[in-house]
Amino acid sequence: MTVAPKQLANAVRALSMDAVQAANSGHPGMPMGMADAATVLFTQYLKFDPQAPKWADRDRFVLSAGHGSMLIYSLLHLTGYARPTMADIRNFRQLHSPCAGHPENFELAGVEATTGPLGSGFATAVGMAIAERHLNATFGDDLVDHRTWVIAGDGCLMEGINHEAVGLAGHLGLGRLIVLWDDNRITIDGSVDLSSSENVLGRYDASGWHTIACDGHDPADVARAIDAAIADPRPSLIACRTVIGYGAPNKQGTSATHGSPLGGDEVAAARAALGWDSAPFEIPADIAAAWAEAGARGAPVRAEWEKRLAAHAQGAEFTRRMEGRLPVNAAAAEHIQALLANPQKVATRKASENALEALTAAIPEMVGGSADLTGSNNTKTKIQQPLTAKDYSGRYIYYGIREFGMAAAMNGMALHGGVIPYGGTFLVFSDYCRPAIRLSALQRTRVVYVMTHDSIGLGEDGPTHQPIEHLMSLRVMPNLDVYRPADAVETAECWALSLEKADGPSLLALSRQNLPQVRTGADENLSAKGAYRLRGATAARKAVIVASGSEVEIALGVAERLEAAGIGADVVSMPCWSRFDAQTPEYRAEILPADVLKISIEAGTTIGWERYVGLDGLRFGIDGFGASAPAPALYEYFGLTPDAIAPKILAALGN
Amino acid sequence: MTVAPKQLANAVRALSMDAVQAANSGHPGMPMGMADAATVLFTQYLKFDPQAPKWADRDRFVLSAGHGSMLIYSLLHLTGYARPTMADIRNFRQLHSPCAGHPENFELAGVEATTGPLGSGFATAVGMAIAERHLNATFGDDLVDHRTWVIAGDGCLMEGINHEAVGLAGHLGLGRLIVLWDDNRITIDGSVDLSSSENVLGRYDASGWHTIACDGHDPADVARAIDAAIADPRPSLIACRTVIGYGAPNKQGTSATHGSPLGGDEVAAARAALGWDSAPFEIPADIAAAWAEAGARGAPVRAEWEKRLAAHAQGAEFTRRMEGRLPVNAAAAEHIQALLANPQKVATRKASENALEALTAAIPEMVGGSADLTGSNNTKTKIQQPLTAKDYSGRYIYYGIREFGMAAAMNGMALHGGVIPYGGTFLVFSDYCRPAIRLSALQRTRVVYVMTHDSIGLGEDGPTHQPIEHLMSLRVMPNLDVYRPADAVETAECWALSLEKADGPSLLALSRQNLPQVRTGADENLSAKGAYRLRGATAARKAVIVASGSEVEIALGVAERLEAAGIGADVVSMPCWSRFDAQTPEYRAEILPADVLKISIEAGTTIGWERYVGLDGLRFGIDGFGASAPAPALYEYFGLTPDAIAPKILAALGN
Repeated sequence: MTVAPKQLANAVRALSMDAVQAANSGHPGMPMGMADAATVLFTQYLKFDPQAPKWADRDRFVLSAGHGSMLIYSLLHLTGYARPTMADIRNFRQLHSPCAGHPENFELAGVEATTGPLGSGFATAVGMAIAERHLNATFGDDLVDHRTWVIAGDGCLMEGINHEAVGLAGHLGLGRLIVLWDDNRITIDGSVDLSSSENVLGRYDASGWHTIACDGHDPADVARAIDAAIADPRPSLIACRTVIGYGAPNKQGTSATHGSPLGGDEVAAARAALGWDSAPFEIPADIAAAWAEAGARGAPVRAEWEKRLAAHAQGAEFTRRMEGRLPVNAAAAEHIQALLANPQKVATRKASENALEALTAAIPEMVGGSADLTGSNNTKTKIQQPLTAKDYSGRYIYYGIREFGMAAAMNGMALHGGVIPYGGTFLVFSDYCRPAIRLSALQRTRVVYVMTHDSIGLGEDGPTHQPIEHLMSLRVMPNLDVYRPADAVETAECWALSLEKADGPSLLALSRQNLPQVRTGADENLSAKGAYRLRGATAARKAVIVASGSEVEIALGVAERLEAAGIGADVVSMPCWSRFDAQTPEYRAEILPADVLKISIEAGTTIGWERYVGLDGLRFGIDGFGASAPAPALYEYFGLTPDAIAPKILAALGN
Repeated sequence: MTVAPKQLANAVRALSMDAVQAANSGHPGMPMGMADAATVLFTQYLKFDPQAPKWADRDRFVLSAGHGSMLIYSLLHLTGYARPTMADIRNFRQLHSPCAGHPENFELAGVEATTGPLGSGFATAVGMAIAERHLNATFGDDLVDHRTWVIAGDGCLMEGINHEAVGLAGHLGLGRLIVLWDDNRITIDGSVDLSSSENVLGRYDASGWHTIACDGHDPADVARAIDAAIADPRPSLIACRTVIGYGAPNKQGTSATHGSPLGGDEVAAARAALGWDSAPFEIPADIAAAWAEAGARGAPVRAEWEKRLAAHAQGAEFTRRMEGRLPVNAAAAEHIQALLANPQKVATRKASENALEALTAAIPEMVGGSADLTGSNNTKTKIQQPLTAKDYSGRYIYYGIREFGMAAAMNGMALHGGVIPYGGTFLVFSDYCRPAIRLSALQRTRVVYVMTHDSIGLGEDGPTHQPIEHLMSLRVMPNLDVYRPADAVETAECWALSLEKADGPSLLALSRQNLPQVRTGADENLSAKGAYRLRGATAARKAVIVASGSEVEIALGVAERLEAAGIGADVVSMPCWSRFDAQTPEYRAEILPADVLKISIEAGTTIGWERYVGLDGLRFGIDGFGASAPAPALYEYFGLTPDAIAPKILAALGN
């Protein structure tokens, strides 16, 4: 290269400050501060090919400090990705530009993960690094041999999830994970000293990481640190000492550069200080050529890899997994037929385990785990061995008491590809990992959340552990399918649907308590419709009772009492709102007719059920917190029994 | 004392294993493992008086490992608290027993915090320790001079929130916070080695803590460690090396003792191993007497303190604050009158700041803060100085990028008493602190969450930062009042309501963008009703438009267009669902009449609005994720403008 690294980095700086200025919105400080280090990474180390952004053996790069999105947009453009174009960058933060405020992997092929919520990108990268090692252990060095790189800021490190991510990565010895920390000593509120006194490297040392510091503005020093990180078998944190907004002579080193445009005068001053003479959005030809050359490094490497893939005995299987195609299998169908032949009264968490036994045997890319509730979530199957630092081929991860870290890692595994992750905790602790669930939904990752102990039916652990608002609060999240199966058959159906959904997350809410098998036929997957008539009225229909999960049994008991009183009653099992909402108006009207009293029963908040029972319907549920007692006593206490509910329906019908 | 400490501890062990056995449910391992250390703490160090559980200057003790609830129930009973009685303990985990599965402060006066969700108790204790130092700085050693103690398990330390709590406590130098870590090397899934390789003490060292280890079964060694902790000016972590289920000869040291009854045989074997001859729920007289003596230590200390309080110049003010009575003040009312005289078009986050200027001046117990978004949340007022390790008298906390830690600390401050905490972040990051918000709601703490950037109206930051499902997901949480004010007047009203609510949390969802002042009169606090008619139809009423926050302006624009077409339309501003639901049926029917087309407009999920507009109503909102663009472009893109909405209403009305 004949162009000095500083000039390459200045191209990033100029694009960043100019795009933010044009948008009159954005974050110039981070891209300008980390331009030197990122230039070293992208020109000398990162393995990628802009012509094949999804090349399976590329290095993964995650900009965890997502607010500095102009950094990655600049790098992708300069290294030769088809998008973003310069026109895209000129449209930074405008409607329909792929250069959104924060990097979004559904907008740009070169963006590996949607970031912005602090700490999440880092924790997602841990999952990518797990997937890499797991697939390496399965398919060997010829097919899988890459690194995961992260640029993170102080916010990423201060967030709680960082502790979980660091602990998990250190424990699993993920030596191919290398984090460049933008150690600029500035947060939005001002100096880091305002809110933190932590010895960051000491903390990482204590968690089994390799740590090293460098001058983030000295390319040789950055390279020295990266070389040391690569050489060390532990995951690495590189503290890149930087000046936020580097190059802006009057504002650099202050929080003023963090989240606001520099302003026209300061942009001009920065041009002068950096010796950058080009007009906004113009890159001198020699610098553009040097960047393009750096971007072309990967093509021959990829060509060699393609040859190895073509010759590899497991090549087709590897490709299948990376493309996210399930193997042809009848595991779910056969399992359901066995249930119909031999009905089971089990908790749906146990039914889930039974389904998983069949599914994990048939689908080798399924990697399970639990946040330290393996025996309660019933997430581990006999075929699964632990995935450990000594043996990455295992398909079960003991995530520890790290719900959020688990969920973020699962996103990373799904984004990496080749793995279908699922993981368990109690439904009430969906709150702990909610930000990662949201990122599953936003990025449409194929992740399955196994959330057991889904109501007061868990009993004695009491209100801190009993979900009330959780089902509803998750149902309102876009793109997330929330399933609450009523029995073993529905549980198997919902598992099948969750795995088939390649373009988004699913969440299974499962009971702790035993439930009778209410389904006696299964010619088709009825859960796929979201809701269906489980039992038709025998007398003239005057009521339709809608329930989910453990309350379907209660609804059947209610219907029995109503029918005994001459009132015809349908029972509708509704395992999944979002799927029901996607059915035709005709089907929905057939299941929930307009002219009949409709009743909902669910052991959770009643707010929201007006959607199906209307303002004139009856809603049975729990609108306060739970209590500590055996489950049957709680159902009675909260009035969720056939004996308590049936008379109220009869009264509403004037009987 | 003539009774050996081991025998005192064995009383705790026996009660714990017997209660769990009787309930056939619960966690014996932790109480049995930590009985020795807890006995040292409660008999020699903890400052408390069972006759006055709410004595203001008592030490605070938080059982962060709340699953070991029998530990605290045993200790409270043995030291002489009125509750739990032995009958309560016999009814452990049964309906209506105050001895719930996890410790609940609303069930027992001696329980300082509701715990169970791992890590939360620890982080709550940090807030208690902050409140203690703040009040000490305000009222002096004579009135405020106590410690905060925590017993925590591996789960508490592994959770992400621990990092935030540890960072905050270390930064603020909370030397009166002492944590006893039950270092038993066991989690639910098995050995800690399964999921963690962390050097825990090293991590705490790196965060500015004092760390020390001891043999958790040697009372003298525990006392030595506690003495060292007291002597050190930093917050302390004491690693108590223990055996889980200590005393159960065949199961101790294994995860089998964690969350299940020991079983009759093992209970009998433990009795033999411990030399405990008494029948279940019987305590030998000498041991009971020794415990009672230990419990009586505090009475004379309290008597001295009561004398000092009575003589103290600030005694009345201190008592007022500790009792949670607001000072008599007209700050909110005067501020609202000023707004009516001089209407303001400002963002409601700015309106909140303006209200806070008046309120913080009038209410000295208000302590504000933000999770590193001070200038965006507008949470700091001119009167507030930073609360720092060098000056605890400050009333503003730079919480750092620690939303969850902030929320948990606010719970701790509110539980401590004498402080009314409020803190800010972006509404989308309510997800990060949701478990703590739930504990605010469950414990009914007076905490005010200031959540700004409450919709797509934040603009360019895009979907990762734009709340969609958040308002609804928070509204379904019991006991939480979610406010979304429409203008500066409503913002002031909602602030007044939030502060007046002594028995629970409030959350303010505030706009980034400017909003016109739509209220022209304020003889009463109309937000108190949750919803009210802001504008009455002038033509014959055929439509009622309900909206909240920034969409009220849009609703007014829609109504204008409808009226221009001869369609009478009410506009209802609905800042708070829960308050509206608490109104009389007559009021609700008056505001939302049955026989008129009802329309909701809110820049978030439409799921749930059927509650007010019915199945025949129209719901305008956003049921997918947002996008990155300037706010006006987004409102247009998502069809949330008067020009887009009015024609749809006209069409629905057949016009």
